[in-house]
Amino acid sequence: MSEQTRRSLTAIVLAAGKGTRMRSDLPKVLHRIAGRSMLGHVLAAAQEAGADRIAVVAEPGRQDVTAEIGRQAPGARVFGQAERLGTAHAVLAARAALEEGDDVVVAFGDTPLITGATLARLRAPLAAGAAVAVLAFESDDPTGYGRVLTEGGRPDGRVLAIREQKDASAAELAVRLCNAGLMALSGEHALGLLTRIRNDNAAGEYYLPDAVALAVADGLDVAMVPVAEAEAQGVNDRVQLAEAEAVIQARLRRAAMLGGATLIAPDTVFLSYDTVLGRDVVVEPHVVFDTGVVVADGCVVHAFAHLKDVRLEASVSIGPFVRLRGGAVLEAGSAIGNFVELKNARLGPGAKAAHLTYLGDAEIGARANIGAGTITCNYDGVSKHRTTIGAGAFIGSNSALVAPVTVGAGAYVASGSVITDAVPEGALAVARGRQATKPGWAEAKRAALLAKKGEVKKA
Amino acid sequence: MSEQTRRSLTAIVLAAGKGTRMRSDLPKVLHRIAGRSMLGHVLAAAQEAGADRIAVVAEPGRQDVTAEIGRQAPGARVFGQAERLGTAHAVLAARAALEEGDDVVVAFGDTPLITGATLARLRAPLAAGAAVAVLAFESDDPTGYGRVLTEGGRPDGRVLAIREQKDASAAELAVRLCNAGLMALSGEHALGLLTRIRNDNAAGEYYLPDAVALAVADGLDVAMVPVAEAEAQGVNDRVQLAEAEAVIQARLRRAAMLGGATLIAPDTVFLSYDTVLGRDVVVEPHVVFDTGVVVADGCVVHAFAHLKDVRLEASVSIGPFVRLRGGAVLEAGSAIGNFVELKNARLGPGAKAAHLTYLGDAEIGARANIGAGTITCNYDGVSKHRTTIGAGAFIGSNSALVAPVTVGAGAYVASGSVITDAVPEGALAVARGRQATKPGWAEAKRAALLAKKGEVKKA
Amino acid sequence: MSEQTRRSLTAIVLAAGKGTRMRSDLPKVLHRIAGRSMLGHVLAAAQEAGADRIAVVAEPGRQDVTAEIGRQAPGARVFGQAERLGTAHAVLAARAALEEGDDVVVAFGDTPLITGATLARLRAPLAAGAAVAVLAFESDDPTGYGRVLTEGGRPDGRVLAIREQKDASAAELAVRLCNAGLMALSGEHALGLLTRIRNDNAAGEYYLPDAVALAVADGLDVAMVPVAEAEAQGVNDRVQLAEAEAVIQARLRRAAMLGGATLIAPDTVFLSYDTVLGRDVVVEPHVVFDTGVVVADGCVVHAFAHLKDVRLEASVSIGPFVRLRGGAVLEAGSAIGNFVELKNARLGPGAKAAHLTYLGDAEIGARANIGAGTITCNYDGVSKHRTTIGAGAFIGSNSALVAPVTVGAGAYVASGSVITDAVPEGALAVARGRQATKPGWAEAKRAALLAKKGEVKKA
Repeated sequence: MSEQTRRSLTAIVLAAGKGTRMRSDLPKVLHRIAGRSMLGHVLAAAQEAGADRIAVVAEPGRQDVTAEIGRQAPGARVFGQAERLGTAHAVLAARAALEEGDDVVVAFGDTPLITGATLARLRAPLAAGAAVAVLAFESDDPTGYGRVLTEGGRPDGRVLAIREQKDASAAELAVRLCNAGLMALSGEHALGLLTRIRNDNAAGEYYLPDAVALAVADGLDVAMVPVAEAEAQGVNDRVQLAEAEAVIQARLRRAAMLGGATLIAPDTVFLSYDTVLGRDVVVEPHVVFDTGVVVADGCVVHAFAHLKDVRLEASVSIGPFVRLRGGAVLEAGSAIGNFVELKNARLGPGAKAAHLTYLGDAEIGARANIGAGTITCNYDGVSKHRTTIGAGAFIGSNSALVAPVTVGAGAYVASGSVITDAVPEGALAVARGRQATKPGWAEAKRAALLAKKGEVKKA
Repeated sequence: MSEQTRRSLTAIVLAAGKGTRMRSDLPKVLHRIAGRSMLGHVLAAAQEAGADRIAVVAEPGRQDVTAEIGRQAPGARVFGQAERLGTAHAVLAARAALEEGDDVVVAFGDTPLITGATLARLRAPLAAGAAVAVLAFESDDPTGYGRVLTEGGRPDGRVLAIREQKDASAAELAVRLCNAGLMALSGEHALGLLTRIRNDNAAGEYYLPDAVALAVADGLDVAMVPVAEAEAQGVNDRVQLAEAEAVIQARLRRAAMLGGATLIAPDTVFLSYDTVLGRDVVVEPHVVFDTGVVVADGCVVHAFAHLKDVRLEASVSIGPFVRLRGGAVLEAGSAIGNFVELKNARLGPGAKAAHLTYLGDAEIGARANIGAGTITCNYDGVSKHRTTIGAGAFIGSNSALVAPVTVGAGAYVASGSVITDAVPEGALAVARGRQATKPGWAEAKRAALLAKKGEVKKA
Repeated sequence: MSEQTRRSLTAIVLAAGKGTRMRSDLPKVLHRIAGRSMLGHVLAAAQEAGADRIAVVAEPGRQDVTAEIGRQAPGARVFGQAERLGTAHAVLAARAALEEGDDVVVAFGDTPLITGATLARLRAPLAAGAAVAVLAFESDDPTGYGRVLTEGGRPDGRVLAIREQKDASAAELAVRLCNAGLMALSGEHALGLLTRIRNDNAAGEYYLPDAVALAVADGLDVAMVPVAEAEAQGVNDRVQLAEAEAVIQARLRRAAMLGGATLIAPDTVFLSYDTVLGRDVVVEPHVVFDTGVVVADGCVVHAFAHLKDVRLEASVSIGPFVRLRGGAVLEAGSAIGNFVELKNARLGPGAKAAHLTYLGDAEIGARANIGAGTITCNYDGVSKHRTTIGAGAFIGSNSALVAPVTVGAGAYVASGSVITDAVPEGALAVARGRQATKPGWAEAKRAALLAKKGEVKKA
C-alpha cells in the first residue's frame, strides 16, 4: 500500500441538494444522525480515508452549511453551486479542487453510511492504474438506481457504462448490479472526462456516471468496487433518515459491546458518534447518550438517563432518571440517584445526591451527602452563581442553597433550610420556620375550606 | 366512481365475540390500540369509507360497549346478539340495517387494521353488478383460515365458495388463498342470501362465507378483492393485540415522518391515532404521545416525555423527563425542562420552567421564569385553586405558591419562599425562615445522633 | 414416563470458561440476563428438569461463582477445574458426581437459553436404553459448530460421531446438522466412555463429543434429540449476551401477555425472570421490572417506571416516571404519580402521592393525601428514621417531614412546612416562614443584582 499512501487524495463532497422530500427548513445535509450532521459523517469518512484536501459543493450563501463544514472539517473549501444541472455539473463546481490531487473521490452529503474504509477501497484501484472506479452493489430491487453495465452482463465483467433508470432499455432494467453513486477518478483524467459529459438524456442532466463510458471509449481502465447495499443508502426523506440512524446506532452499539460494555437492551440505548464507554460499564435499557459523553470503567448507568457533555470517572453509579449535562463531572465512586439533574457541576469522589435534586454551577466535595430535594438556587434572574460544598458536608433534605454560597467541610445543614449565608467548616446551620401545632384544628380547617368552596360555588 | 358515490352504504360491524383468550374482564373490542379501542378503529374505517349508516352487533347489555360506540360513531345503531351461532347469524341480528342500503359491508370489531380505503375497495365491485365481494389474501401458512375456492384453483379464477378449515378436504387445505372474513353484499341480495345459510357443517355454525356458494348457485357475480395478509389480521389474544399495535404505530410514525417530523428512533416513540406533529418537529427517543396532543412546527420534544391533552405552539422545547397533561398549553417559544409536570396550566410566550417543578391550575405570563423546585400548591384537600403569575415575574427556586394566589407582573419571589398572599406587580416577596448558624456544632450534632443511635440499639 | 421418573438425574454444569471475549473482570457465567446470572438460568433449567443432584465445574477459587451457585442451587457441589484441556476433561473434574446418577446431563453455564423441558427431552432416550444422547440442530450456516455425522448422511440416520470444525474433512464440513454441545449419558457408561477420550486432534483437546464415536464402537445406542438453533446459542461476547437477553425477554413477555397482561409495546418493557404480572394489568411503553416485583390484577403501570423489590396490590396506578424499590408495598387502590420514589415504604389503601415526592422508610395510612414535593427526611447523616402518617391525613405540598416523626390520622400539614415534631390526630401543623412583601422592590432588587454583576465583571 506504500504506492497508494504516496498518492495525494482529494475528496469532493456534493452537498447542494435541496432535499424537498425532507419537508424541512433545514438543508438536508444538516439533518443529524447520532449527534452529527449527515454532512459531518461524510466529512469524517473522507478524513478517515486520508483525504489531504476536502472540497464541498454547497448551495451558495448557506451560512449554516458553511459553519458546519468549518466545524467538521476545518480547512475544507466550499464551492457554491447555484444551478443544479446534475452530478457532473456539481463536481465541476469544485473544478479548482479537481486538478490538484493524484486521486479524487466523489462522495455525497446525503449518503452518510459510507465509511472511511470504503472510500479507501474505492480509491485503491487508481494506484493500480484505473482512471475511474465505481462503487456498486447487487440489489434484489434495483428500481430507481443507475445500472452498472458490464461486458457480457457478467457481475465480474469489464465495466462498460452506467445507465440511469430513466434512460435504460428493458434489458438494461433487468440488470441487478447498481451504481452506489460514489466514484473515484484519477486526477490526471478527471477534468478531461467530466468536461466532456453531455446532458442528452431523459432528464437533461449532466450525469457523473457518464464518465465511465467516456473512460471506456478512451481505452482507460474502469474498476468496480463492491459495497453492501445498506451502506450505499441515501437519505431523501425522514423515514430514510431514521433508517440511516438505525444503521449507525447498530454500528456504535456493537462496537461498545465488543469493547466490554454491557448494553442490556441495545435497541433502546442511543449513542452519539463520540460516546466513549469503558470496560465493564453496564447500561440499563432506555438511555440516551447525547454528544460529549465519556464513561469510565465499571460505571453503572441505570435506566432512563439522558447525558450530554459529561464525564463519569471510574465506578460511578447514576440513575435511574437522571439528566446530566453542561460539563458535569462525576468523580470516582460518586453516585447520583433518581430525578437528579447536574449542570456545570462537579461531584467529588464518593459524594452522593440520591433524590430529586438540582445541582447547577456547583462544586461538591468528596463524600458529601446531598439530601433529597436539595436545590442550588444558582440563578437570581440576572446572573448565575456558584455553590461550593466542602468534603464530608451533610445537606439535609429539601434544602435550598442560595448561591453564591459556601458550605464548609464537615458542616451540617438541617433539613428544610434555605441557606443564604456561608456555613463555616464544621458548623450547623438551620434556616426554616418554627412549627406551630394546633390540636383539633384540622377539622376546623376542612370545615372552613368546605364553607369557602360553598361560597365560591354560590358566587 | 360517480356511480358508486350515489349508492348508499351500510356498515355492519360484528363486535359480540367473547374474547376468552384475552383473559380479560374488558370486552375484547374495547382493548385499545394507539389510544383508541379496536372497535373505534373499525368504526373510523367505516366512516372513512363513507358509510351512511353503521350498525354494530354487540353482546346485549354491555354499557361500556354501547358507550364506546356512542363516542366513536354517534348515530350508529346497536343490535344485541344473545346467542353466538356463527357470523351469518350475527349479521342477521342487524337484519333491520341489512335491508336499507344499496351496499352492505360487514367488518369485525377485532380486525382493527382494516383501513377505510380497503372497505371502499371491497364495496366497489357491487356498483359493477356483483352481489357479493370477498376480501382475500395469499398466505404461506393458511392453517386456520377459510379457503377461497376458485374455478380451476387459479388465483384469478371465478370464486366458487369459501370453505372453513374444519370442513375442508385435503385438496382444499392445500389452497393458499384465504378469506379475510370481511364481505360486501348488495343490499338487494343480502337478506335473501343470508337467511338461506345453514349450519350443517363441522362446527354447527351459520357461516357468513357460505353466502358465496349460495350466490354462485343463484348465478350471481361474486368478486374477490385482494388485501395484504397483515391488514387482515384479527386479534384474539394480547400477543396479537401487541402485534396490531405495532402495525398501527408503524403507520402513524411513517405518516409523521413523511409529513416533516424527525423521529430519531421511531420504534421508541408511541403515537396516538389523533397525534398531530408539525413540520420540523424533532422528537428524541422514548416519548409517549397519549391522546389529544398537538405539536406545532419547530418544536423539540426531548427524550422521556409523556404527553396527553396538551398543545405545544411553535418552537416550544420540552424535556427531557416531562409530563404534560390535562389541557396544558405551551405558547410559542416557551420551554419546559426536566422533571417538570404541567396540568391544566398555560405557559405564556417565552416563559420557562426548567427543573423539578409542578405547575397545576396555573397561568404563567410571558417570559416569566419559574425557578427549580417550584410547586403550585393547588389543592387544599377540598378544592383546587388557581395560581396566576404575571409577565416577566421571577419565582426563586424551591418556592411554594399556595393557591389561590397571584404574583404580579415583574414581581420577584425570593428562593425558598412559601407564598400565601398576593404579590403585587413589581414587588419583592420573601417568605422563609431566617438562618441560624452555630459554629462548631456539626460535630456535636453528629455526636448526639450517634449517641441516640446507640440508645435505640440498646432499647 | 414412570420408568424415567424412577431414574435419578445428575446435572453437570460446566462453568469454568474464561470468557476472554467478554472483556470483563466478571466471570462470564455471572453476567446477567433478565435479572439472573447465565449460570443461574442453567441451574434453574437443571432443577426444572428434575435434577436430583447438581455438580458445577468452575474455575477454582472464584468466591463469586461459588456464592452464586449457593444462591441459585443450594446443595449443588462445586468442582474446580484448574487446567482447561477440553470439555471431556472438564466433565471428569466432576468425576465423583458422574458415578452417582442413573442419568447424567451435561449443560454449559454459557448456554443460558436451554430450558428445563429440553434437558428433560435430552435425557429421555436413556430410559429407553441409549448410552448417549446428543442435542442437535440443523443450521443454514454451520461454520464453527461440531457436525453430527450420521449413517448415510441422513438427518434421521443412526448417529456415528461428532466432528469438530477443525478436524472435519471437506465432505464433513458440508454437513448442516450441528452438535448443540449438551449431552446426556447413562450413568452406567459415562465414566467408561469419558476416560477413554483422547486428545489426538487439531486442538489437542479432550472433546466430550468424542464419547459418541466411542459408544458407537462399543455397539451402544446413541440417540439424537432435536433442538431449535436459537435455544442452543452460546454466549461468548456482549453482543451475544444482548441477543440471549432478547430471546429470554421475548419468552417472558409472551408468557405475561398470554396470561392476561397488556404490554402496549412489549419490546420496550423489560422483565426479570421472577416478575409476576396479574390479569388485566396494563403496562405502558418503557418500563423496567427489575427483580422481585409482583403486580396484582387490574394495576396500571404508566410509562417510564423502574421497579425492584416491590409489591403492587389490586388496582394500583403508578407513574409515569416512578421509581419503586426496597420493599415498597402499594396497597389496593393506591396511586403514585410522576417523579415519585418509594423506598422501604408502605402506602395504605387508596392513599395518593402524585408529584415529585420521596417517601423513604415511611408508613402512609389509608386514603392519606401526600402533596406535591413532599420529602421524608429519613436520614440524618448517621441513621435512618421512620415517618408515620395516619389514615386520611393531608400533607400540604412542598413539605419536609423530618423523621422520626408522626402525623396523626386526619391531621393537616400546611404547604411548605418543615415538620419536626409529632402532629397529633386531627391537628393542624404549620411550620414555615411568614411572608414579607415589599412593594416596588423587585426593580430595586434587579438593579442591585445588575450592579453586583457589573462589580463582579470589573473585579
